[in-house]
Amino acid sequence: MPGAKLNTDYWVSEYISPCDIYSHGLKRIFVHQQTAFQEMSIVESSTYGKALVLDGKWQSCTGDEFLYHEPLVHAGAVHHRGPEKVLVLGGGEGATVREALKWKTVKKVVMVDIDGEVVEACKKYLPEMHQGAFDDPRTELVIGDALNYLDNSESEWDLIISDLSDPIEEGPSFMLFTKEYFEKCRRALKPNGCFVVQAGPLDPLRMNLHVRLANTVAAVFKHAASYSSFIPTYASPWSFVLASAQPIDEFPDPAATDKLLAGKTTGQLRMFDGRTLLGMFQVGKHVRLAIANETEVYTTDSPPRFFGKGAGSE
Amino acid sequence: MPGAKLNTDYWVSEYISPCDIYSHGLKRIFVHQQTAFQEMSIVESSTYGKALVLDGKWQSCTGDEFLYHEPLVHAGAVHHRGPEKVLVLGGGEGATVREALKWKTVKKVVMVDIDGEVVEACKKYLPEMHQGAFDDPRTELVIGDALNYLDNSESEWDLIISDLSDPIEEGPSFMLFTKEYFEKCRRALKPNGCFVVQAGPLDPLRMNLHVRLANTVAAVFKHAASYSSFIPTYASPWSFVLASAQPIDEFPDPAATDKLLAGKTTGQLRMFDGRTLLGMFQVGKHVRLAIANETEVYTTDSPPRFFGKGAGSE
Amino acid sequence: MPGAKLNTDYWVSEYISPCDIYSHGLKRIFVHQQTAFQEMSIVESSTYGKALVLDGKWQSCTGDEFLYHEPLVHAGAVHHRGPEKVLVLGGGEGATVREALKWKTVKKVVMVDIDGEVVEACKKYLPEMHQGAFDDPRTELVIGDALNYLDNSESEWDLIISDLSDPIEEGPSFMLFTKEYFEKCRRALKPNGCFVVQAGPLDPLRMNLHVRLANTVAAVFKHAASYSSFIPTYASPWSFVLASAQPIDEFPDPAATDKLLAGKTTGQLRMFDGRTLLGMFQVGKHVRLAIANETEVYTTDSPPRFFGKGAGSE
Amino acid sequence: MPGAKLNTDYWVSEYISPCDIYSHGLKRIFVHQQTAFQEMSIVESSTYGKALVLDGKWQSCTGDEFLYHEPLVHAGAVHHRGPEKVLVLGGGEGATVREALKWKTVKKVVMVDIDGEVVEACKKYLPEMHQGAFDDPRTELVIGDALNYLDNSESEWDLIISDLSDPIEEGPSFMLFTKEYFEKCRRALKPNGCFVVQAGPLDPLRMNLHVRLANTVAAVFKHAASYSSFIPTYASPWSFVLASAQPIDEFPDPAATDKLLAGKTTGQLRMFDGRTLLGMFQVGKHVRLAIANETEVYTTDSPPRFFGKGAGSE
Repeated sequence: MPGAKLNTDYWVSEYISPCDIYSHGLKRIFVHQQTAFQEMSIVESSTYGKALVLDGKWQSCTGDEFLYHEPLVHAGAVHHRGPEKVLVLGGGEGATVREALKWKTVKKVVMVDIDGEVVEACKKYLPEMHQGAFDDPRTELVIGDALNYLDNSESEWDLIISDLSDPIEEGPSFMLFTKEYFEKCRRALKPNGCFVVQAGPLDPLRMNLHVRLANTVAAVFKHAASYSSFIPTYASPWSFVLASAQPIDEFPDPAATDKLLAGKTTGQLRMFDGRTLLGMFQVGKHVRLAIANETEVYTTDSPPRFFGKGAGSE
Repeated sequence: MPGAKLNTDYWVSEYISPCDIYSHGLKRIFVHQQTAFQEMSIVESSTYGKALVLDGKWQSCTGDEFLYHEPLVHAGAVHHRGPEKVLVLGGGEGATVREALKWKTVKKVVMVDIDGEVVEACKKYLPEMHQGAFDDPRTELVIGDALNYLDNSESEWDLIISDLSDPIEEGPSFMLFTKEYFEKCRRALKPNGCFVVQAGPLDPLRMNLHVRLANTVAAVFKHAASYSSFIPTYASPWSFVLASAQPIDEFPDPAATDKLLAGKTTGQLRMFDGRTLLGMFQVGKHVRLAIANETEVYTTDSPPRFFGKGAGSE
Repeated sequence: MPGAKLNTDYWVSEYISPCDIYSHGLKRIFVHQQTAFQEMSIVESSTYGKALVLDGKWQSCTGDEFLYHEPLVHAGAVHHRGPEKVLVLGGGEGATVREALKWKTVKKVVMVDIDGEVVEACKKYLPEMHQGAFDDPRTELVIGDALNYLDNSESEWDLIISDLSDPIEEGPSFMLFTKEYFEKCRRALKPNGCFVVQAGPLDPLRMNLHVRLANTVAAVFKHAASYSSFIPTYASPWSFVLASAQPIDEFPDPAATDKLLAGKTTGQLRMFDGRTLLGMFQVGKHVRLAIANETEVYTTDSPPRFFGKGAGSE
Repeated sequence: MPGAKLNTDYWVSEYISPCDIYSHGLKRIFVHQQTAFQEMSIVESSTYGKALVLDGKWQSCTGDEFLYHEPLVHAGAVHHRGPEKVLVLGGGEGATVREALKWKTVKKVVMVDIDGEVVEACKKYLPEMHQGAFDDPRTELVIGDALNYLDNSESEWDLIISDLSDPIEEGPSFMLFTKEYFEKCRRALKPNGCFVVQAGPLDPLRMNLHVRLANTVAAVFKHAASYSSFIPTYASPWSFVLASAQPIDEFPDPAATDKLLAGKTTGQLRMFDGRTLLGMFQVGKHVRLAIANETEVYTTDSPPRFFGKGAGSE
């Protein structure tokens, strides 16, 4: 950005809170529309590249999405040590599928997203994200409801990844951050399968969502562990929860992870390796304490209400 | 923030880049003035609490400053295993000194800050930050130039912490992110002393500053290691470099760290413990690669020019 | 502004509507405080000079306040042709009094403002506004409630000027935009006295306030006429209503006005003369039609609720 | 806007100056593209309706465009008293042609706009603006350069309207605010024809453009007069210059104007009538003084450089 001047007149302003706004100047607006489920745009940020925005929340942009999608997919895959069947719930722009396909062990990836308009727009305007993932013969795309899909699935998957938009009240996802949903996910896994869910910000002033989600996942799975990654355009550290019937050792041996990745993936990872994985599972003491003290779980009757679009609560 | 509405009319807008603006709504503005060195304000953010802002850059706020100051101080102190004499260069609001004083081994902390107006304003309006640190008998406050102070100091310190504002062109600090400055710091350390410097964002699109600083520090000290922490109001993961004449083992044993902390500190740490420390040193693969490939060092003739106040370059 | 660059980090963002924000970059913030009645600041805008801001609404700034205060005072004074006793209700920063004192006929100006903290801060930080008006022997400043003051005043004033902040729900003024208040004003006037009230924006999408105020004033006074002036920092044409027991001829003869001004004022007017006055009373056809069709009046039971501070209604 | 909440995430931020930004929240973005000449979007503002935006400058929106287009067209037409042939230079969205066609005397309107992409997008997305004007048999649309068109035109037009985007350095129009251009316009008029040009803001801090344009037009035409209208979304009073070989009487008789309008137009005017016209020509004393004192004219060698897109000068 040497010598840069501010000459941007179009902005996406994400309300991190009602009084904290992260605004990104836009060079191009490829599409902006109200789909059947949400407000969608695909834009090009002046700094961070092309991006998908849903209900005013920055979803993923070419400049830093690898910091989100690599942790989302590979932590669970390393824990499993060689998934063959992967189910992606949500995942609109295709980058989660793209990462799953990097595992040579993978024979099938099914992606279930409720919003076909989002998927189509991403295919058209965001090829940098999917990089051909939708055309891979191992990929099956299902436009439909994740809950319905799970109802017809049992003991089937090695890895299930819940890659949904944040559970804001105005959006389509908040009922999918509940105990009932996680139970459906657990039933759909093979006995040695594992589950990963994107689980909101770790900002100390906004980590309630993560803390309760971690507690909710732990109420459903035998083992659960939080981890996190830096994603600059989210203006917050971001969290995930990995869950499994098997113990999660939190990956103490980077060299072993690197060896596994070298043998079983195509090796095109930018941020993820043994050391990165070890680091991501060491969430801060304040987060661990908050999770240990949490007692509530999210249920269908009491789902999360994440802040979004100008007003709301957690 | 349940039911919150946006009724804030005053904002601090930090230009993360020329086209990415993070705006914080303000409830109160305690003071806004041009000091002899920089533009300063002390404000109360609606969400993140009270904050010091210098040259339009958010320095530290009560809501998340512990995520900055605990890593800044305790990583080096753990590496040293029991510092007695600590030198803080910069550190205006007193939180760095506050953390250093938590080490029962510490006999003396000298803080050298060039801007007495900032220090006085923080004493008056931000007691939450220093928490009495300036009144501790072990503390000595020097209003003056860090370079001059270092010139009169040799083989004296167990731990030197460079807690300066970012090296923006308009600010007072950019000449203190150079090889010459780091050499003065090294000479001022005891043989087993160590050095820590705040070293800018790790955002993949803005990590040049960190990468060159890490390389510059490595050109001066026998051993150097990067680490990082999440600080939400910085809208980026933030980095530090720890440097020493002794090997840095990167803290593989959290239990050993916890035992050291339990024995030698007053134990009031919120985010820092053995696991957190282990995690912070596992910076992402992309960062490690960039550092390994970096060849340039910052010097007095070629100092960093960090983006700030609306225009500039790195 | 040749070659200007955007290097402002502090902003006042006025919510013209919930989705239209006019933001002014600040060079200095002299004071920001919650008074007993309202949120106040005195700032220096990078472009428009020093300004008073109340409850997030831009009140007057040195760059364009003459476009507000000259019409506010001189239209009524010309209509009267030589006021001796002038009552200013509101008028915090002193510019309305300053204009009234330009009439050589004036023997006494009483200003009644409820918020002594605002008046004191303006005296201290905004001398450009009052220009010594508070020290003029003809000026009397009363800190108190306009309604109470009016209760003790009858057939006394040649000119009453209602210079209150907008009737936002959060502010101190909305009960002073009602029929009951205007009746008290009428009773306080001499038989040939006249009354002027600042009466909100004339933006076609926000002119309800003006239209109902004009109708309310017309329900109280024998004659009433709307007029308006451009005030750039208000992001809208701004309106006033002049009311009197005498017919208002709308000033068809600019030369006669100029002669009156030359004889009876000190002549330091920047925007106001005979032609300007003639033009200001020719409000647009759409405004005249809306006023002609309005039937509601504002009363103590049904006062205006102007948009302000992020939510509200008219 | 009763009970409204701020839930807009997309904004157009117009830089009124480098430090004064007027931001409009958007409900929809119909199209955003770089044409061969400028950056264009058609959007729907949450408050002010649908709008055309060029190079980041708000051009016209359904909520208040009548306050711009009626003065632009009808002042000149009233002066002429019955134009038959009208030439519109610029005028992209078709509203200027729409107004011209309201004159029953009009037999032909030619609109010459350089940017066919803008015209096509407006036809598609902004039918509220042209209201069928492009389909009127009297209308001829020419996509081309105004200067070229004028070179082939002599003593031909009753009314020429220069409805160009502001002369910002980045835009296509700034060479069309010069003496040479105005001379071509004059030559293209019939002896009793007249000329109108949109002439920038009358904000006292930004009226240089108007003042020099008025002086430039006056250097070319025998008679010239400034007038202005309130356009809220421009955040400023807006100016025009009317020029003619005949004296401009400034319309002292509203009833006579109303009679002319009643006889010769279709009568669908919202803001324009005799009183409005009288008022618009009474620009403020400060503006008249500035024009009287101006000596510079804009020429091809020294054209205006209006502020736009983040940097520039007048």
